Amino acid sequence: MTSVPAADAARTDAVLPLVGSTIDVARERRLTLGAEVSHHFNAAGSALPTAAVVSAVVAHLRLEEQVGGYEAAAHVKDHVEAVYGSAAALLGCSADEIALFDSASTGLRVLLDAFRPAPGSRIIASRSTYVSHALHLMTLQRERGIDLVLAPVDAHRRVDLDALEALLADGRPTVLTIAHVPTSSGLVEPVDEIGVLARRYGAAYLLDATQSVGHLHIDVARIGCQVLVTTGRKFLRAPRGTALAFVQRDCTALLPPTAPDVRGAQWIDAFSWDVSGTARRFETWEAGIAGRLGLGVALEEANRRGIVETAGWLTATGDQVRESLRAIPGVTIADPHGSDSAIVTFLVDGVESARVSAALADRQVRVVSVPATHGQWDLGDRAIASIVRASPHVYNDEADISRLLEGVADIARKEARR
Amino acid sequence: MTSVPAADAARTDAVLPLVGSTIDVARERRLTLGAEVSHHFNAAGSALPTAAVVSAVVAHLRLEEQVGGYEAAAHVKDHVEAVYGSAAALLGCSADEIALFDSASTGLRVLLDAFRPAPGSRIIASRSTYVSHALHLMTLQRERGIDLVLAPVDAHRRVDLDALEALLADGRPTVLTIAHVPTSSGLVEPVDEIGVLARRYGAAYLLDATQSVGHLHIDVARIGCQVLVTTGRKFLRAPRGTALAFVQRDCTALLPPTAPDVRGAQWIDAFSWDVSGTARRFETWEAGIAGRLGLGVALEEANRRGIVETAGWLTATGDQVRESLRAIPGVTIADPHGSDSAIVTFLVDGVESARVSAALADRQVRVVSVPATHGQWDLGDRAIASIVRASPHVYNDEADISRLLEGVADIARKEARR
Repeated sequence: MTSVPAADAARTDAVLPLVGSTIDVARERRLTLGAEVSHHFNAAGSALPTAAVVSAVVAHLRLEEQVGGYEAAAHVKDHVEAVYGSAAALLGCSADEIALFDSASTGLRVLLDAFRPAPGSRIIASRSTYVSHALHLMTLQRERGIDLVLAPVDAHRRVDLDALEALLADGRPTVLTIAHVPTSSGLVEPVDEIGVLARRYGAAYLLDATQSVGHLHIDVARIGCQVLVTTGRKFLRAPRGTALAFVQRDCTALLPPTAPDVRGAQWIDAFSWDVSGTARRFETWEAGIAGRLGLGVALEEANRRGIVETAGWLTATGDQVRESLRAIPGVTIADPHGSDSAIVTFLVDGVESARVSAALADRQVRVVSVPATHGQWDLGDRAIASIVRASPHVYNDEADISRLLEGVADIARKEARR
Repeated sequence: MTSVPAADAARTDAVLPLVGSTIDVARERRLTLGAEVSHHFNAAGSALPTAAVVSAVVAHLRLEEQVGGYEAAAHVKDHVEAVYGSAAALLGCSADEIALFDSASTGLRVLLDAFRPAPGSRIIASRSTYVSHALHLMTLQRERGIDLVLAPVDAHRRVDLDALEALLADGRPTVLTIAHVPTSSGLVEPVDEIGVLARRYGAAYLLDATQSVGHLHIDVARIGCQVLVTTGRKFLRAPRGTALAFVQRDCTALLPPTAPDVRGAQWIDAFSWDVSGTARRFETWEAGIAGRLGLGVALEEANRRGIVETAGWLTATGDQVRESLRAIPGVTIADPHGSDSAIVTFLVDGVESARVSAALADRQVRVVSVPATHGQWDLGDRAIASIVRASPHVYNDEADISRLLEGVADIARKEARR
């Protein structure tokens, strides 16, 4: 691990010895048109796709243009089928445990609703919960008499396992919903250990893996969650408007969708219907097929690159960026201690996060600022109005990281002079 | 209106004098690459888009490839805003009464849920209801104690207005949900008259206009519905994976979404949030932005072409196709008497609908077969296992129609010889 003194980073174009050798960054950059356009550190927002992903989407749109949307879908039926297998390979499950959605928010809504949380039952949510899911949970609390409890956190803001066990030990019907990695920091929740507790006390376990699929090595069997939901556009590098979920097979058998759709169920008689035996029961049939084909290519690429190798590289690079930023005067790392992911959050003394983000954009360095309104149980609880978030991916090279560090140092220094 | 004797249609390449002169079909064909590829009569499934629609989508995907998904979205913010205005112009409402979705099924689910039908309340649904929405309604009946009532139909299978009024007159809290045009026939429900009754008796009124927007002239104020939902891919000629809804302003103010999303609500404090004052409160923020831009172009094109002119041409062409098919020996029109739309459904004696559809595809004529499982309250109720559906759009010329009629006549004749 190399940490770069801020002053050096700001003053030189020094090429950092990039951690890890498992990822061929030069090759990834050749496959990624956008890698030469800007210094893009927004994989946790919407990552740069490869040319192959975009080509797959465009090719299908052109086919639809020629032959029509339904006719084109019939042509690529096998390719769409393969998307389920590729997702299953990445997550360590079966293809019939995969459902596709247009967004992770839709997936989480549909799948939480499928559990039919009853009045008086309990939902325990991690403080890492994303705004959209949190608003759904709070609406259930307000309108449906659900007892919503936030899981206590330890000194490093991760779910406190002892406190969680003490909550679960009363045996009340519980849905446990955890964000693997929040939108607002590089924290990684102890999802395996939480899974042990969920199994021990019979809680249903939903994992929002929006910021972790394609980023960390995920094995749903090891985690033991019933449901995992993620989006395409972030670390998976798939098109916007794509998302997927794992729904554990035994769990699928128990949960009919609250609003079945034309292909997820068969309407057999005036008032009776059969629901699909697979996770596709939760899907809305209509979809942008072109986007799903792009998702398929992105999943294949992630599998080919190797998620263990990718996770190792991303985490090490995140650590490197985090430590290098920490060394810059006027910069405070906002990630809780022990954060070990490619999401790096920080603050610059005296400069609003949105201004830092805009000033970096002027330097062709792309990050985002995340306001507390995206995670009140985390940022709000820590009394942080907003943070700057930098999230690298395998297309980021040493020069990108130098530009990021130089830019931040420059912004911090100018502010110090004011 | 010209009806072509079947024998002639089957034997000649006679150019039909196409009804109406308000649509420049030759021009529409020049704008539509797929018009020369097949004889495409599947606008009610997924219509052929114009080159401009596809170009808008592809251009944005290329921009995302270069600069990243969030950064590209920032570039086209005004264009995305304009989509709402174009939709409002088409439907006769305000831009802040428009919400965008990924599919009409999602829109209907979210908006029906927003009414929070309470146990003991009533939903009256038309027999024209589409499978996905029907499955949601039946799930509410089964699990939530909602009284689901099918609106009685008149001799022509349209909602019987007297019978509907008799139902509504008891004043029970009611959500009325009507499909403007079903998936399974060319029937057009009397939506204005239903609106009068809904207002008179205080029923909430949802209109599934999936098969009618871009096809018939729709003025939501005249109809008096609180909610209208439609998809992009059908008569609007927009990309797959796009949909939109009108939510009447006063109604929006009353209905918070059951699962608010990050931009439709503002999470202001640990357990409090403000919901947007516009229909966007019902949206899921994440979306395929490229598809939305394509939807915008399709809406602009529909507005430019003129919906009154388009509706006149489509309806007349539907009537022409219907009457020409009716004249073919062995063909039975399945549309209820008085059907007056561009959706034409029929049966060929002794040939399963799926076989008719496949045999037409061999002739480069694209139609679909619709099974009863897509509309049990209509097709099932009429004891029809499946129908063949042909749905023209403004890119269909006389030669297309001749090919359709010849193909059907040929298939019917071969069957008669067996």
